[in-house]
This record gives sequence, C-alpha cells and structure tokens, in this order.
Amino acid sequence: MKKNNKINAAILIIGNEILSGRTQDTNTSTLAVWLNSLGVKVNEVRIIPDIEKIIVDTINVLRKENNYVFTTGGIGPTHDDITASSVSKAFGLKYKVHNEAFKILKAYYQPGEFNEGRQKMAWMPENANLILNPTSGAPGFNVGNVFSLPGVPSILKSMLGGLTNSIVGGKPILSYTISLRTVESEIANSLTKVQDNNNDVEIGSYPFFHSGKLGVSIVIRSEDKSKIDKCKSQILTFVKDKKIEIVDR
Amino acid sequence: MKKNNKINAAILIIGNEILSGRTQDTNTSTLAVWLNSLGVKVNEVRIIPDIEKIIVDTINVLRKENNYVFTTGGIGPTHDDITASSVSKAFGLKYKVHNEAFKILKAYYQPGEFNEGRQKMAWMPENANLILNPTSGAPGFNVGNVFSLPGVPSILKSMLGGLTNSIVGGKPILSYTISLRTVESEIANSLTKVQDNNNDVEIGSYPFFHSGKLGVSIVIRSEDKSKIDKCKSQILTFVKDKKIEIVDR
Repeated sequence: MKKNNKINAAILIIGNEILSGRTQDTNTSTLAVWLNSLGVKVNEVRIIPDIEKIIVDTINVLRKENNYVFTTGGIGPTHDDITASSVSKAFGLKYKVHNEAFKILKAYYQPGEFNEGRQKMAWMPENANLILNPTSGAPGFNVGNVFSLPGVPSILKSMLGGLTNSIVGGKPILSYTISLRTVESEIANSLTKVQDNNNDVEIGSYPFFHSGKLGVSIVIRSEDKSKIDKCKSQILTFVKDKKIEIVDR
Repeated sequence: MKKNNKINAAILIIGNEILSGRTQDTNTSTLAVWLNSLGVKVNEVRIIPDIEKIIVDTINVLRKENNYVFTTGGIGPTHDDITASSVSKAFGLKYKVHNEAFKILKAYYQPGEFNEGRQKMAWMPENANLILNPTSGAPGFNVGNVFSLPGVPSILKSMLGGLTNSIVGGKPILSYTISLRTVESEIANSLTKVQDNNNDVEIGSYPFFHSGKLGVSIVIRSEDKSKIDKCKSQILTFVKDKKIEIVDR
C-alpha cells in the first residue's frame, strides 16, 4: 500500500435539513475520526442544499482538489434524493439501474415490497462500485474518487468498515492531549513559543468548561511521534514553571 | 426595515478541531435556526482549518456570494486564533488594537490580570463594529457583511440576542412537519407528485427511528403560509388514502 503523508479528503454534506438547522450534522465528526485513523486528513467540509447544479459544481471542485470526496445524504427513495443523479452529471456518466444493486435490494425486501420508490435506490452512475450496507440494504456507491454514503448516521457508520480497504491513506495522524486547569490567556505566550519552535506540528488550544470548572486542552498533532514528544516536553516544562495543574479529561 | 425574500447567508466554521473530528460542531445548527427566525436563509456552510490563506480566500468568496457571512472560532488569545487578522487581510484593513474592545476587556478583568494574551483579543480589523459578549467579556466583531463570533457554543449563543437588530432579514421562513408511521419508499411517488404540483415550496422527507419504531417526517417550508397549507392538504389526502398513521414527534 502506497504510503504518502499528503493524502487528504473533503466531506460534502448534502441536505436542506442541515442548512435549516432542523437536523444536527454528526456525520462530519464520524467521517473525520475514521479518516484520521486511516491517515487521511480532512481539508474541508461543505454543507450544501438539495439543488442539482450546486451539488454537481461542488463535487467537480472538490474532487479535483482532494484525493477523496465523501458525500453524505440524498441517496434514499424520495424526490429530494438527488445525489446519485448529480454525481452522474458531475462525471458525465449515464444515470441508470445498477444490476447488482437491484439484485441486493430485491433480495432484501419481502416479495411484493420492492416497489418503484425502492427501485429508485438502484439507480446510480453507470459502472459505479457499490458500498455495501449491512444495516438497511440500500448500497452507497463510488465513482472515481467520490464515495457517496447515506445521511442517516447509524447507517453511515455501519458502512465504513466495509469501505476501509478501498481507502489508501498516508501515515496515521497521531495526537496527544494535555488538559490543564488554567485559562488560555495564561498560557498563550508560552504556547506560541512552542508552536514557533515546532512549525511542522499542529498545536491547538481548546478551552473547556467541565464539572463547574474552566480548563484548556492542548492538542498536539503530527504523523511523527518523536515530534509530538518534543512538543509535549516543551509544554510540560512551562506548565511546571507556571505551577499549572494537569487534569484528566 | 427592508423586506426582501432573497436574503441569504453563509456560515464559516474555522477550526482544526472540527476537521479532525475531535469536536462536534453545533454552532451551524444554532446559527441556522436563529437566521431562519430572522428570515435569512443559509445557503452554504464551510468548515476550514486554521490556515490564514484559506481563511482569507474563503471569506472573500463567501462575502461576495451572500448577503451575510458568519464566522465562528479563532477569536481567542492563543496562537491558533487568527480569524481577526485574517478578516483584516480579506478586507485590506489594518489589524490593530480596537480602543473600545480594549476598554471592555480591561474593565472585565481584575487589576493585573489583563495580560498580553488577553490584550490580543482587543486586536481587530480597523474600525470594526463590536459584537458584545455578555458571557465572557471578549467581543466579536463585524466588518462589512462579515460577522465574527467565538467557537465556544454557549458563548456564541449568548451573543446572538445583541446581534439581532444588526441583521435585516426577509420574510420569516415558515415550516410545518407531518410525521408518519411509514417508510420513505411507501410515500415517495405520492410525495413527488405533491412536490411537482408545488414547485416553489421546499418539501423534505426525513426517515427517523424513535422508540424502536421507524417513521418519516415530511417538512414543508415556504415564506407563504397559504402555500404550506395547500401542500399540507395534498399530503394529508394521500396519507388518508394509504391509511398511514400520523404520529407525534
């Protein structure tokens, strides 16, 4: 498996229900954690409405700028499910019945239940690769570097395991968190110095409020454990000097 | 107040912690619900990393394509808080101490506690309008049509009330939800007909799984209550014909 440390992805969340605030997106976080574990860095997330032209244009921008694009939503049986037809247009492919998907869906439903609405879920870009769905039958699909998954979080999660072998990632991105009983402004200058001394490591500072107490989590991220260790040691030095308490979180 | 039904906004979530999956974004949903109540439609959300060039370029795209842009995150005291300097660059404005913000912050902290890290939070694009922060002192800011808010959800929420008068929205977007004990494929064809008969109304179909039972929520959205009522009546007609149970949700 090719190991390259610059493998990246974009996530494209398709759905009016997220933009209206009706539904809280949780798929971004699920996908991001899974991609990180495979050594794929998420560059960008976009949330867009169920409008064909916007979906087609956005897919065509993101698939050129990223190694992988993961879409969620819009692959069900109703009129507002237009991801499959939009991906077809983006790639200039025919939108047609996928025979294997049709067989899977037909076998999944009771005799007589595989109605026209359900048959729509077998329509995909021509020659798409299927992404199998252990939860509810209807497969997702993959064309080029674009992988289209459902919007329902539990179903999406159940499909990632079967997809892992299709993703060639880079080195896994490691992270280490130090949580402190302090506020950001107490450590801002010292932390800036550590960041300046370690330009190729990503250091984030995140305030939290937990059990009635304020704190800050410092997150160090890199593909190289020795670089994380070096940062960690520099951070622990100023933490000790400032007599800041380290807390579990 | 000008009433126009085409007022729209983009939300720009700035922060590596969202892209890594470490933190679940909830600000999109908070902002979207608030904007909807003001008659502002969210066109698009983007989540991007703490990288200056990307922030500057994305702000410059979004502020031209939307009536309003709301950014969240990156306005604290640490090295990874670069939203204020990036907005300054995007608008070609000086990044400097804002006297009023400096006074507010100085008054907020105990004598001797207004250190260099905290003073950084008074640095903003020149002549920015402040967005007052009733929770933790440090204000957000507004330049042109861009409004920059903090990433911590509880603080962001506390600042929206004071911002409402700065936003000129269109007609409020109304919505009506009908929840049914059915599955999407049972109603897909009938719902498509209703959508085709009511092109200017947004009809969404969202499966749910609640208390061990499957269901579908149909959401009708429009600025015009009579159009919602017309759709509702057409949907209730096919629901009755199909003997589908209506459920509370």
